[in-house]
Amino acid sequence: MRYFVTGGAGFIGSNLVDRLLAAGHHVTAFDNFSTGRHEFLADARTSDRFALDEGDLLDKAALARAVAGHDVVFHLAANADVRFGTDHPDRDLQQNTIATFNVLEAMRLNGVKRIGFSSTGSVYGEAEVFPTPENAPFPVQTSLYAASKVAGEALISAYATGFGFQAFIFRFVSILGERYTHGHVFDFYAKLLANPHAIEVLGNGKQRKSYLYVQDCINAILTVVERATDPVTVVNLGADEYCQVDDSLGWICERLGLTPKVNHTGGARGWIGDSPFIFLDTAKLKSLGWRQTLTIREAVVRTLDYLRANPWVLESRHAA
Amino acid sequence: MRYFVTGGAGFIGSNLVDRLLAAGHHVTAFDNFSTGRHEFLADARTSDRFALDEGDLLDKAALARAVAGHDVVFHLAANADVRFGTDHPDRDLQQNTIATFNVLEAMRLNGVKRIGFSSTGSVYGEAEVFPTPENAPFPVQTSLYAASKVAGEALISAYATGFGFQAFIFRFVSILGERYTHGHVFDFYAKLLANPHAIEVLGNGKQRKSYLYVQDCINAILTVVERATDPVTVVNLGADEYCQVDDSLGWICERLGLTPKVNHTGGARGWIGDSPFIFLDTAKLKSLGWRQTLTIREAVVRTLDYLRANPWVLESRHAA
Repeated sequence: MRYFVTGGAGFIGSNLVDRLLAAGHHVTAFDNFSTGRHEFLADARTSDRFALDEGDLLDKAALARAVAGHDVVFHLAANADVRFGTDHPDRDLQQNTIATFNVLEAMRLNGVKRIGFSSTGSVYGEAEVFPTPENAPFPVQTSLYAASKVAGEALISAYATGFGFQAFIFRFVSILGERYTHGHVFDFYAKLLANPHAIEVLGNGKQRKSYLYVQDCINAILTVVERATDPVTVVNLGADEYCQVDDSLGWICERLGLTPKVNHTGGARGWIGDSPFIFLDTAKLKSLGWRQTLTIREAVVRTLDYLRANPWVLESRHAA
Repeated sequence: MRYFVTGGAGFIGSNLVDRLLAAGHHVTAFDNFSTGRHEFLADARTSDRFALDEGDLLDKAALARAVAGHDVVFHLAANADVRFGTDHPDRDLQQNTIATFNVLEAMRLNGVKRIGFSSTGSVYGEAEVFPTPENAPFPVQTSLYAASKVAGEALISAYATGFGFQAFIFRFVSILGERYTHGHVFDFYAKLLANPHAIEVLGNGKQRKSYLYVQDCINAILTVVERATDPVTVVNLGADEYCQVDDSLGWICERLGLTPKVNHTGGARGWIGDSPFIFLDTAKLKSLGWRQTLTIREAVVRTLDYLRANPWVLESRHAA
């Protein structure tokens, strides 16, 4: 099979590229390197079944040329920062909604009809059912990021109906693990490097979140694409547990041997539109045969160890 | 109050403009006249509280200037044709999703924070609960039109959270009544004018649909905006009944004194992505004090009578 992975130089994308190559497939990574890293493709580049296409999803003509000849598209590229949507309101529209439309059009023009899409558990807004199943009540969106992912899901589903595509829509919790480049573990570790004696935590630290290890995420993606048969499969990807933000900070501090003074900024939410409780029902995913291998705590510690072993990830981010 | 109505020269928009003027408000109609009609604003133009702003929602700078100085925006402009999305896949994205984003940005830049939005019952896709309540299970989209409306709802909700807007999201069934310019009554009447002896009906004629009279629709809009207090109010607008397509054709033929041979094209759906059953739960709307005044049959007949009394509506459409 010939796979096309948008965001293929990113955290999840590059891990997926490596797994697809290891399974014997041909893989093209498409990335504009706004947050992707050439370093993450070092292994991939050793394969003669790998190609890198440096381009932007907003360049429709280049994208259409790039997609030609592939069997399946994994559309993982996105502005993935849920927090700062209100600082630049058009970023999620452009990089997520319109970019997803461009991917779909590139596929339609080339007769490519299978797509996997990285959506988010944030589409449930402030859910009222926990763990939250895929058919939870029609939610109200609370962030521009989630709004753009809902728009992407809707476009992909409409293309499945209108043009005979098969779609796999993955609603992720936050992912942890090797090549992790942003999120709370990154932020806490960076803050503790700068000041090991005190750390500020957004919100009251009681926010409950679920996280998933990146290889468990990719196991889930590959399981769903292999086994799901519906025209549109929407599936949650998460862990069967959650933790509080303060729990995770505690694990990080213990691993680092630090006991900083913790200052909470207060409030139930870390930022405007933050969901204070994310915990997804993974019964559908498990019914396809998937199993979680790392606990959240293990995934947090592994992520921290990765960042400690790869200081260039933090340094280059700071320089950006 | 100063109201800004996008699509103000359209079917529902111009009726809303008239009602707002009758209530003593100042009203600006914004329309690009792609489907809007100057004739529909003949009454409005007699008021010195009315202004017409001819412009396009994709012209962000002009839109931002136009929105300045208003208190409430009713965003009704849209590509409203649910059927032909796959003929021009980017039309719903441009005219609905991106246009809605532009409206929100124009409001944000001008400090205008109240918005009413015409969404659609089509966002429920192929619903599994009837009548369908607002908190029905998170649906899968089946048309590019509904996908664009879901995207619009999500953007508006995210702006409400992120920027302190108050939003009223109206999920309409199909609307009937004076100034109606497209839909099944229009199509059936036009076909019967061309050939009174035979008529083709898309699908098997058994599709079940709910319809609402335009003045009942506007009563509902004004009731919700006056009484709802949440930051985001999502509310169904529909009738407490539904009919089959063949029922409506029967009422039309009876009114016209015709007995044409009816040829069904077959299948449960009239077109790709058509929902074979639309029937919305209006308990929330009624809890705010709204009541339906016309039955579906009365609304169909009134629509037909309007088209018969205003043949220019059909003629000019045919010329377009």
